[in-house]
Amino acid sequence: MQSFELDKSDLLKIKKALEEDDYVLKDLISEYHPSEIAILFESISQESRERIISILPAEFASDIISEMDAEFHPERLLENLNPERRSEIVEELDYDDATDIISQLPEEQQLEILQELDEEDASNIRSLLKYEEDTAGGLMNTQVIRINEFLLKKDALEEVIRQSEEMEEFYTINVIDDNNILKGIVSLKDIIKARNNVRIQDLIKADFVYVKADTDQEEVAKLISQYNLTSIPVVDDNMHLLGRITFDDVIDVMEEENTEDILKISGVSEDEELAGNWMEAVKSRLPWLVLNLGTAFLAASIIRYFDTTIARMGLLAGYMVIIAGMGGNAATQALAVTVRRISLNDLTDNQAYRTVLKEFTVGLINGAVVGCIVFLFALFYDHNPLLGLVIFIAMTGNLIIAGIAGSSIPLMLKRVGIDPAIASSIIITTFTDVFGFLLLLGLASSLIL
Amino acid sequence: MQSFELDKSDLLKIKKALEEDDYVLKDLISEYHPSEIAILFESISQESRERIISILPAEFASDIISEMDAEFHPERLLENLNPERRSEIVEELDYDDATDIISQLPEEQQLEILQELDEEDASNIRSLLKYEEDTAGGLMNTQVIRINEFLLKKDALEEVIRQSEEMEEFYTINVIDDNNILKGIVSLKDIIKARNNVRIQDLIKADFVYVKADTDQEEVAKLISQYNLTSIPVVDDNMHLLGRITFDDVIDVMEEENTEDILKISGVSEDEELAGNWMEAVKSRLPWLVLNLGTAFLAASIIRYFDTTIARMGLLAGYMVIIAGMGGNAATQALAVTVRRISLNDLTDNQAYRTVLKEFTVGLINGAVVGCIVFLFALFYDHNPLLGLVIFIAMTGNLIIAGIAGSSIPLMLKRVGIDPAIASSIIITTFTDVFGFLLLLGLASSLIL
Repeated sequence: MQSFELDKSDLLKIKKALEEDDYVLKDLISEYHPSEIAILFESISQESRERIISILPAEFASDIISEMDAEFHPERLLENLNPERRSEIVEELDYDDATDIISQLPEEQQLEILQELDEEDASNIRSLLKYEEDTAGGLMNTQVIRINEFLLKKDALEEVIRQSEEMEEFYTINVIDDNNILKGIVSLKDIIKARNNVRIQDLIKADFVYVKADTDQEEVAKLISQYNLTSIPVVDDNMHLLGRITFDDVIDVMEEENTEDILKISGVSEDEELAGNWMEAVKSRLPWLVLNLGTAFLAASIIRYFDTTIARMGLLAGYMVIIAGMGGNAATQALAVTVRRISLNDLTDNQAYRTVLKEFTVGLINGAVVGCIVFLFALFYDHNPLLGLVIFIAMTGNLIIAGIAGSSIPLMLKRVGIDPAIASSIIITTFTDVFGFLLLLGLASSLIL
Repeated sequence: MQSFELDKSDLLKIKKALEEDDYVLKDLISEYHPSEIAILFESISQESRERIISILPAEFASDIISEMDAEFHPERLLENLNPERRSEIVEELDYDDATDIISQLPEEQQLEILQELDEEDASNIRSLLKYEEDTAGGLMNTQVIRINEFLLKKDALEEVIRQSEEMEEFYTINVIDDNNILKGIVSLKDIIKARNNVRIQDLIKADFVYVKADTDQEEVAKLISQYNLTSIPVVDDNMHLLGRITFDDVIDVMEEENTEDILKISGVSEDEELAGNWMEAVKSRLPWLVLNLGTAFLAASIIRYFDTTIARMGLLAGYMVIIAGMGGNAATQALAVTVRRISLNDLTDNQAYRTVLKEFTVGLINGAVVGCIVFLFALFYDHNPLLGLVIFIAMTGNLIIAGIAGSSIPLMLKRVGIDPAIASSIIITTFTDVFGFLLLLGLASSLIL
């Protein structure tokens, strides 16, 4: 079929079936792909989810759970299952998915589930639980195809097929020595094409990319994307093969990192779940607003300092808001371009310098153009060319500051190891507010009044 | 090796070698991976790039060109090459990469290059040039593995190996009938495991995902990500197999779409190239600033309308800026969360309704908390409880408006088929500016003065 996406009529059909008996429901659900049911789960109640999970075959149920977005708490579906059913489902999960899900449960329940599992599964998951969630170790699956470098072609092929019985799919074949030290990778195609008396070690690719278990997940994503890898082996400090990370895990990581970038740049805590409730949203955003309130008081104090200027020339209040607003917007633009550029590539010192220089130039030109328009307005509407000149200078100056701050602050943060996206538009905008007010009111009070 | 990333010493070594003769340079360059040289190209002159491309073997040169980011104009490297060398390099490119690069050249040069190529390559590229760049057709590669459904296992395996000689890698095997109609896909593993007298048609997976050539690239990316596919077949309206799109193309599309989201939400034209020069940046950002200038005049006109109010109570000017600023920030937060949520999932009517309701609640609470703080300030610093009350109401009201506008505007845009990210913070912020000023100044003039 061309696309499995659920449309409205599917949704209605399933929702209706939720009122029918289990057989009808089960039959209908089985017509869909697990990833579709995972999406359906986002719009039905927890009770309905639990009912569906409880009536499906364990394999289908586990596929749905592994496809669910972490935001919708797949782990909660395990909590109320009876132990036997639960271990059936967990055993069907890939180890990396099982680990991710179990790690979200309270420790007591984790131990309970691990005790229910057979020893091999439990020890695999236990060893994965040790790794930080956002490292290669936390992302990897321990089920890999591994063959000894001394095998002959024919035996190797048999071994690969035997090992692959237990796996849904594999992309590369890891070659190890007698001590499980990773020696290289080889493709199924190359094994098939080789003559029968060739040893696997002669088919190994000399250059191959691998990562250590403590590598940051963002770094893993960059490598997979740069080298177009379907999967990448994960090793410990002594080159022992631990597992593999596949491209589909990395696609999820990329979506996650991109969400974090957009949220942070907009002054939202990176932990806020997109589909979370209002309490989580308040918790994630209020601190940023309060922080910004402090800086807003700073901007307001400048206005207070010039209160006699404003009282004597009421026109300034309106222009003040225009200049500060345009500065904030220009800073947001420079910030977005710079943050995105940093997150896709590391910049050399020279590139960083040229980025700031470019933003200076853009600020100068955009400031002058916008400043001209406002100058003309002051000239023809307020008949005040001197005020127009002051506004022109303040606008140009503020947009230059906006360009420099919007580009140099994230670059400096990156240099000292802080996430550049934290230089959110909230912070940068205060910068341009303060400068905009200072420039306009300062110039006006000394030149005009 | 663990990572191929170029470090500073590599960069210096290569830059030094650029001053040496061709042999030294070529030897050094050959030690690196093409994707590393593509990154190096971002920080050296166009002359140096052309020199490196001209001295390397055609295959290596073409690998570098295909790895280059479109922003750095790989097509310009072809312009000054002599025709023979150029066709050598183009013939080494995958058809989809060759098409992408050639399509960036002026039509005259496109024809010139196509004439230099051998007939098969030229006709493949010509047919790909017909498709829009951001559709499945524009993204696909026409080199696919295709085998007839009636082949027996043994012949099929030989055929796959024969066809794969010309390809660097493949992930799935397409099964077609005598008329090149796509019947399904099969994995190499399943072919190997089958007995010799099994026909391919018995190994086909019944359910498989494919796309039409005119499918939007974003839709393709969603399918590949949802179903964890390494590659997806592309067909025409009559199910004729045209090509395939692989996961690595989709990773690039995702990066591109994410960049567009961040830029648009920050009021930068989606076409701005991150590493572009200042002229491109001015062209991309100035229209947004001028558009915003119009709306800023609107906000300023409200202030002008209340100029006697401000003249009689100078304190209002500072508070006005605080309330408008906080509203802008709260709106940016709601916007970022909503836009990102829409871009990852389609929301049902009910989910959309609950999103706006949630943002209303968040605005109410955050507004009340921040409003309280400012109320206390007005009470203890300005000794004016009535002013404090007005500020409290205006702050809460403005943050409620911010939440509703920040969530409902992108949702409505999505509903009518407009990209929700276009509801950039620039536009939403004007909304809160106008409302903030109206609320504060209106309340102040009617309740206090």
